Amino acid sequence: MGVVVALEDKQPSPRIDGLVGLTKSDMEKVNAAILSRTGSQVTMIPEVANHLISSGGKRLRPMLTLATAQLAGYQGEGHVKLAAAVEFMHTATLLHDDVVDESDMRRGKLAARMLWGNEASVLVGDFLLGQAFRMMVEVGSLPCLDVLSTAATVIAEGEVMQLAAAKDTQTTEDAYLAVIAAKTAALFAAACEVGPLLAGRPKAEVAACRSYGHNLGVAFQLIDDALDYGGTAAKLGKNVGDDFREGKITLPVVLAFRRGDEAERAFWRRTLEKGEASDADLDVAQGYMRKHRALEDTIERARHYGKIACDALELFPASSMRAAMIEAVEFAISRAH
Amino acid sequence: MGVVVALEDKQPSPRIDGLVGLTKSDMEKVNAAILSRTGSQVTMIPEVANHLISSGGKRLRPMLTLATAQLAGYQGEGHVKLAAAVEFMHTATLLHDDVVDESDMRRGKLAARMLWGNEASVLVGDFLLGQAFRMMVEVGSLPCLDVLSTAATVIAEGEVMQLAAAKDTQTTEDAYLAVIAAKTAALFAAACEVGPLLAGRPKAEVAACRSYGHNLGVAFQLIDDALDYGGTAAKLGKNVGDDFREGKITLPVVLAFRRGDEAERAFWRRTLEKGEASDADLDVAQGYMRKHRALEDTIERARHYGKIACDALELFPASSMRAAMIEAVEFAISRAH
Repeated sequence: MGVVVALEDKQPSPRIDGLVGLTKSDMEKVNAAILSRTGSQVTMIPEVANHLISSGGKRLRPMLTLATAQLAGYQGEGHVKLAAAVEFMHTATLLHDDVVDESDMRRGKLAARMLWGNEASVLVGDFLLGQAFRMMVEVGSLPCLDVLSTAATVIAEGEVMQLAAAKDTQTTEDAYLAVIAAKTAALFAAACEVGPLLAGRPKAEVAACRSYGHNLGVAFQLIDDALDYGGTAAKLGKNVGDDFREGKITLPVVLAFRRGDEAERAFWRRTLEKGEASDADLDVAQGYMRKHRALEDTIERARHYGKIACDALELFPASSMRAAMIEAVEFAISRAH
Repeated sequence: MGVVVALEDKQPSPRIDGLVGLTKSDMEKVNAAILSRTGSQVTMIPEVANHLISSGGKRLRPMLTLATAQLAGYQGEGHVKLAAAVEFMHTATLLHDDVVDESDMRRGKLAARMLWGNEASVLVGDFLLGQAFRMMVEVGSLPCLDVLSTAATVIAEGEVMQLAAAKDTQTTEDAYLAVIAAKTAALFAAACEVGPLLAGRPKAEVAACRSYGHNLGVAFQLIDDALDYGGTAAKLGKNVGDDFREGKITLPVVLAFRRGDEAERAFWRRTLEKGEASDADLDVAQGYMRKHRALEDTIERARHYGKIACDALELFPASSMRAAMIEAVEFAISRAH
């Protein structure tokens, strides 16, 4: 396991260090804002929030807000609070997702709901969402508030869509794409859009950054879905096969189901629709995916969206930030190797 | 059951008709906004949202936003969307509360989570919260956004406080008041504050409306808590004794516990802390409350806050709206009779 597709040996692995380096000093301010805004005299709130926040997510989404603000030449301080708000929106989603999915693990640690109960996950998620909006209000940009509040709605819609499509092996690739566009890519898109929006840049640049974020988000989720069948628990921060055990229909399944024969389809129906998936079944599922190159092609699809993301940035003149943002796309995709 | 304290016969029952009548035409616009904003191509969202929204809550909170806007002489249309946003925030809280409390009933119907699962309640709540913020952003008043987003945070804090205090019979009246100030009164206060705020009225008027809302909210929750031990299921829209069975510490319990002897305190510890409450125990609990006049005094405390609410409005010149708002306070308290 672990290696899904062999990398061509001579190519150096793409790195995210460029993006991390260019946003480092801003990111320290974001981290300070995050820390101060999880504070509450209700002690359970910082406990639960920090359990998840301090568990070392990559903070890719707030980093993108900082990066696009910088790319757009923004000079103020508002991007810091918007970036922290984006991370809070993401964290709130994770807390609520764990309740919805009944997950045991998150980012390599026990999920908050396992330690403090579903109640705390729901309510601390609500608290963080409230704090996210307060920070946006403090920045005072109505266009940014519009983008981020719309994203909050779309994310919830995407999660409900996923719920409705759960265990349905008839799900088409298009339906699946609509789900991940909403549940994952909407926040990436919004995180990238608010940078140039705050800087007051022209519509075309705002749209370009949004397009970069959206397509990077789709690619990111596709890779995540491939890793769930072909990664390692250490890389994933959750258990390999979680999606399978939860009956989640992701692109690797959509492809394997469509390319499989009747016996294979009966297998997918039994394991995913009826929820009778054992550990031995996971091995079989992975075997079918290898047979039909379902993971390779999921990664190939991710590459397609990654290219769109990179081309969107061509509107901006060459700069170290633009190069770092392009390499970040390649890094996101290379996680699958 | 049903009658907690006998009303003096000659006094006519206070009515909410005045407030309903004065806000009627605005309320129709609010209802239209609510209906259109639960729309989504994801069919489960309007299903779940409308199950709760159409089940005939009194819509007291949005009515208060309309009333205070009118009291403040507001001339625009923004109060309609803010009122709808307030109702969405409330509905989202109810959906999430049901998951937290594991409730079976809500407003006399099966709780949404019983029909669509916890997942749908969490996610549709998130959707409604997102829509609430979108409507506020459309109105475009940053001060109103500040008030309502802060309320969202405080409500979540109050719910977590309640969670932390759950099953703790040592809870003081002050600690209990802090919980209901946050979980219930904060939204009443915000709903009332945004009316004059939107109208650009002076600080003192904004503060007066906020004070009215806050104290009405505290009184409202105290009456709700009394009804949970002394009302009828029809009046409550939930089951009598729900709080008891959930081990919720409310003022009637705080008073009965403090006024009881050691045997009674052992009873409260066994039933509420250890969660061994049977139906027969509910009868015993109600008996102790009668013995110590716990419900009467809870209602008396509610009257105290109701008076503060009414006095806060004295800042405004006499008008049919002011009179209707004062009668609404009396109505809220008279629910206990």
